Amino acid sequence: MATRKTGDAALAELLQVEAITTDCYRQVRDQLREVVIRLGANGTLRLPSEAELSAALGVSRATLRSALQALQQEGRIRRLHGRGTFINRYALGVGANLAEAGPFVDLLGRAGYEPSVRVVDQQVVELEQDDATALCLDAGAQAVRIERVFEASGEPAVHSVDLVPAHLLGGDPEHLDARRSTFEFVEAHAGLPVCYSVAEVRPVLPSPALAETLRIPATHPLLRLRHIHIRADEQPVAVTVAHVNDEYLRFSVIRTYLDD
Amino acid sequence: MATRKTGDAALAELLQVEAITTDCYRQVRDQLREVVIRLGANGTLRLPSEAELSAALGVSRATLRSALQALQQEGRIRRLHGRGTFINRYALGVGANLAEAGPFVDLLGRAGYEPSVRVVDQQVVELEQDDATALCLDAGAQAVRIERVFEASGEPAVHSVDLVPAHLLGGDPEHLDARRSTFEFVEAHAGLPVCYSVAEVRPVLPSPALAETLRIPATHPLLRLRHIHIRADEQPVAVTVAHVNDEYLRFSVIRTYLDD
Repeated sequence: MATRKTGDAALAELLQVEAITTDCYRQVRDQLREVVIRLGANGTLRLPSEAELSAALGVSRATLRSALQALQQEGRIRRLHGRGTFINRYALGVGANLAEAGPFVDLLGRAGYEPSVRVVDQQVVELEQDDATALCLDAGAQAVRIERVFEASGEPAVHSVDLVPAHLLGGDPEHLDARRSTFEFVEAHAGLPVCYSVAEVRPVLPSPALAETLRIPATHPLLRLRHIHIRADEQPVAVTVAHVNDEYLRFSVIRTYLDD
Repeated sequence: MATRKTGDAALAELLQVEAITTDCYRQVRDQLREVVIRLGANGTLRLPSEAELSAALGVSRATLRSALQALQQEGRIRRLHGRGTFINRYALGVGANLAEAGPFVDLLGRAGYEPSVRVVDQQVVELEQDDATALCLDAGAQAVRIERVFEASGEPAVHSVDLVPAHLLGGDPEHLDARRSTFEFVEAHAGLPVCYSVAEVRPVLPSPALAETLRIPATHPLLRLRHIHIRADEQPVAVTVAHVNDEYLRFSVIRTYLDD
């Protein structure tokens, strides 16, 4: 039980720092992603040293290393002990990476569309068994349900439903600002950032209602992503089910086998 | 141009070492994955120190770090600078992880089926434009085409087609041992391991032939994974198109947002 205690103490400590460090880290990661794309387009396969990169970006070595780690996890780069950091050249063309975080509006923008989001519905509901189990709650517990449609230059491209347990949210749940992404919504209203998500990836045919919303025939297969979002203290804080029309957004995943 | 040369020299060096280090590294990674699952099932969220783990597994710190890196990339663990390495508890239940390497027979075995593989066809073909482009070759270039069906306790669950350029392969291309996985096939016959793969993930309906092979109705959506496999020298060495019936194999992906 000693191990357990150590883990919990460390987790408690985490909760103090993460909210503070998140923003800066994300900025540096996005900057570094741009640098990698520019270098790769230029035919360079090896990244400059950590010292050179941290000087160029004006950040500490620790922050730089976190950003390098994120790009490595996304499959954009691979690091080889004592040899340097290399760009995965064929990974540069990947627009929507399943392993990357990112609001759908950003992904649609990167795919070349004018992105927009419409909140179709926002209400308090009672959780059904499946979703309640995923959120470690009993069926019937209250949650805020937010239904959105993400548009690509005016065409409906992605439909999503978020469920966030009401007891985690401050304020009047029906009047919280739902236009934010799930992550921002949870961070802003539930006080703590999402630490990781587990997403099940399935091919499905649309229900009649979904086919109408996305303006597709009933025979048009969609990618269904069901996310469970988890906080640093291992508390699940939201379920998101998204249906993606892959004529607008085509996902890839990059697997690196030899890495260090 | 100096940068380019440095990169190429380093890449040449890589080609010497990777084939040797691959096997040991994979073994340690698989062992460590088991350790993480056992610890997590036991309620422990924080991993022992690197010193303790390398002693317990009987491997060097460098090899252990590579294995930790692999698990981190798969989303099984997250590392936090100065705080330790934590298990992503909700990631433990994920059987088939899209970000992980792995032959379909292993994935079907882990999903609880008696897995088997049947080579349906193996022949030399001329590449069509799409696949030729992916392999940096001209249309009409020769490739070995291997068609397989992976079965789950006797039921057809996955259909795959590999294309490997003939000029990369030694021996008589029509008589190479095709029962190996794509990775093993490329490593054994093209001399160098696959370094990373880029896989496009799409929901599709089956062609009539595919519906018959997988014994599903024409309205049963499948997950289509089109991989391009890349060597350490950035040479694409194979294309694999797999169609997965997700009644047998359901993929997930784990995204970690706060990592170090």
